[in-house]
Amino acid sequence: MATETTSVNLVTADTLLQNWQGHRRLTRKIIETFPEDKLFQFSLGGMRTFGEMAQELIGMTMPVVDGVATGKWEAFQSGKPATKSELLRLWDAQTAKLDEEFPKIPLARFWVVEKAFGQWEMPGIVMIQYAIDNEIHHRGEGYVYLRALGIEPPPFWERN
Amino acid sequence: MATETTSVNLVTADTLLQNWQGHRRLTRKIIETFPEDKLFQFSLGGMRTFGEMAQELIGMTMPVVDGVATGKWEAFQSGKPATKSELLRLWDAQTAKLDEEFPKIPLARFWVVEKAFGQWEMPGIVMIQYAIDNEIHHRGEGYVYLRALGIEPPPFWERN
Repeated sequence: MATETTSVNLVTADTLLQNWQGHRRLTRKIIETFPEDKLFQFSLGGMRTFGEMAQELIGMTMPVVDGVATGKWEAFQSGKPATKSELLRLWDAQTAKLDEEFPKIPLARFWVVEKAFGQWEMPGIVMIQYAIDNEIHHRGEGYVYLRALGIEPPPFWERN
Repeated sequence: MATETTSVNLVTADTLLQNWQGHRRLTRKIIETFPEDKLFQFSLGGMRTFGEMAQELIGMTMPVVDGVATGKWEAFQSGKPATKSELLRLWDAQTAKLDEEFPKIPLARFWVVEKAFGQWEMPGIVMIQYAIDNEIHHRGEGYVYLRALGIEPPPFWERN
């Protein structure tokens, strides 16, 4: 059993990154699918627009990765892209940055418990999974916005 | 680097199960938060009710786990709970079942590629992560339903 435990990695840094980037490709498609005005103006139930949610995702991704990599927790990046093309430009720049920086996280850092952003005490891997889960969560909200607008979103299982 | 790779498991079967069960506790809270009638009648944009989505989650969880464990892919369990209490009863029974069955998945099975349910060719770990992601996705949709009903959902980060 001990041998089996150490010989199989359920998730490697690379498969975790690939899973995240797959989700990011789908989230990008959701951003693209919104009509320009709805992206920054439409919402339901007093919630934020999908543009604001996408901005949150952009603002936290690299601070999370850098924090896990180095133990330095910088504030979430703020900013307010005014257009869909600006949002997509930031998204794409971050996709490249993520591919560049994620593999540099020292493996031992994934299980170091730290107070991320001075607030959330958890191991690095849990913080990263949280960031991915948070993206799936908000994107799910975006799906309802699109449906409520009468627009069919790309299928959830599409990650290419 | 080779040493480091094999000495750190980013995710173990146990931490993966704990993450899933944490998500399941939150999803259960969302089911509970819906008023009985809205759970089975309210939806937006022509989508399914949250009761139907919860039913999908209940129907796929054990077939996924059993399929990864054994290579036998049984059909998703169908069914139509008529009340919130019935839905929660099924949910809780499944929570116990998941705790019982998940640790029995042979570790080597997680990376075996199979055509899950005769349709999706992927390794077991990817299928399981997909099931968790699918739950997060639909729960995110449920958050919008609740907000649109004027009901504040429990925070996304609450997993206890």
